[in-house]
Amino acid sequence: MSWRWAFARHVAQAQRLLPTSSAGGGTGLLGRHHHHMPLASQIRSKEQQDPFELVADEVSLLVNRLRFMVSAEVPKLASTAEYFFKVGVEGKRFQPTVLLLMASAVKFSLSESTEGKVLSILADKLRSRQQNIAEITEMIHVASLMHDDVLDNADTRCGVRSLNLIKGNKLSVLAGDFLLSRACVALAALGNTEVASLMATTVEHLVTGETMQISTSTEQQRSMEYYLQKTYYKTSSLISNSCKAVAILAGHTAEVSVLAYEYGRNLGLAFQLIDDVLNFTGTSASLGNGSLSHIRHVRITT
Amino acid sequence: MSWRWAFARHVAQAQRLLPTSSAGGGTGLLGRHHHHMPLASQIRSKEQQDPFELVADEVSLLVNRLRFMVSAEVPKLASTAEYFFKVGVEGKRFQPTVLLLMASAVKFSLSESTEGKVLSILADKLRSRQQNIAEITEMIHVASLMHDDVLDNADTRCGVRSLNLIKGNKLSVLAGDFLLSRACVALAALGNTEVASLMATTVEHLVTGETMQISTSTEQQRSMEYYLQKTYYKTSSLISNSCKAVAILAGHTAEVSVLAYEYGRNLGLAFQLIDDVLNFTGTSASLGNGSLSHIRHVRITT
Repeated sequence: MSWRWAFARHVAQAQRLLPTSSAGGGTGLLGRHHHHMPLASQIRSKEQQDPFELVADEVSLLVNRLRFMVSAEVPKLASTAEYFFKVGVEGKRFQPTVLLLMASAVKFSLSESTEGKVLSILADKLRSRQQNIAEITEMIHVASLMHDDVLDNADTRCGVRSLNLIKGNKLSVLAGDFLLSRACVALAALGNTEVASLMATTVEHLVTGETMQISTSTEQQRSMEYYLQKTYYKTSSLISNSCKAVAILAGHTAEVSVLAYEYGRNLGLAFQLIDDVLNFTGTSASLGNGSLSHIRHVRITT
Repeated sequence: MSWRWAFARHVAQAQRLLPTSSAGGGTGLLGRHHHHMPLASQIRSKEQQDPFELVADEVSLLVNRLRFMVSAEVPKLASTAEYFFKVGVEGKRFQPTVLLLMASAVKFSLSESTEGKVLSILADKLRSRQQNIAEITEMIHVASLMHDDVLDNADTRCGVRSLNLIKGNKLSVLAGDFLLSRACVALAALGNTEVASLMATTVEHLVTGETMQISTSTEQQRSMEYYLQKTYYKTSSLISNSCKAVAILAGHTAEVSVLAYEYGRNLGLAFQLIDDVLNFTGTSASLGNGSLSHIRHVRITT
């Protein structure tokens, strides 16, 4: 079993761990399929299920909508901005998967009564707003990849040519800005000031993390504290704050939204720690296709 | 009289032209100083007044607050992001001036009654939110200048070295992103979805305009329509939409906010038209110090 599979499985398990989820009983995402099974079988069955499959169809719809959301008027801008959202280039969509699983994990349970049916309409509306968070997260993520590559001047990156080499630094900067502005418009449309502020702060964190990475003193390079702070900003802040946003939109208490945040924080940190260790110990085969930075390494197919 | 002075004076005159302003009578910004003077003298006096002076103190406070708003944690990011906000580098602050004058122009009149005093507190709160729009506009403006300079590879720009040459492309990109994220946080704090959406769209327009400028076909280069569309996106959208935002925050009707938008649109277009003509006919002396792109040309003093 790969470590990536293990991580994603933890998200599915979070449904059991988060306080509100236990109240969900048989109506949770996994529970729906297994509510007649004895507990021991349920746990075994859950452990064998690929968490990516649980929301694969929903992620697929979401990615289609994203392609529409990032379409630009001017051809040159369009082709650059849409590049990472093309079929075959989109990678594993790790972050949308985690966020949709988190949305299921923090779901309130619904009864079968008339009141339950009204609530079910509200629940669909909520789910669609949580999908928006996943879309916004993906746009911010791709924008930051585009901007991080500026001035790398690497002819090849892991054996394949980088977008900036093909499209030029300048267009990558503009396309990244374009994605950020679309993300900001989508955030404004959600109409939740706390969530908008959280997500805007993640952009600041991404920039701070990247700056820390390119301007480290020898002393800082040896500091585990500095490394973890940089890693939080660069890899963990986006997923942790978007997990929190998903819980806030669901109307959860501060306690639950902090749990969601902590989940994302630890997931992001663990992800980057393993990725960094594999830089020293791993081969491209053991690194596989699912890393967070995978999107940068894809072979250009069009 | 310079053309720039003439433009700024038009903003002051807008106080007379906008519908709500005529209701303001002696309580408008200019009226306060002149309400005992006969009408003819008032008009003469208004025409002699430098519009920049009308809000100079307020712009100065605003710029101080901006310096605080753009301060970053990591030293390298801080020095780049704060660069354009330093004393001596800040230029004429044309856009904040126009926006504060617009805020005065769309001001409702207040009576001297108790009710008037309550309203006066609300008016102060509104003014401070309109100042926020000016701050956000300035952050977006500076961020776009930083990103536009990427890959210009010009050793000197109008005789002075560009920021990117000194700080590097990459840091300019990151610092621009940092300013955009701070602008987005400030927008979220305003809690007005329509305004947030308007301002986020201006970032998209700036990017679209820049892309149109760097990727023009020979046919497009000869099209006045294409030129005006590009100019709207690149120079006029930010000032026109922020003028509109100032009117929306004041609770004006769609009619008034569209007038404010049109004012900004025409001001921005006229500004760029003259700037572009001066590229062919003007000397650096006649170009002076007040152009919208002036901030890029300033001599580095520290």
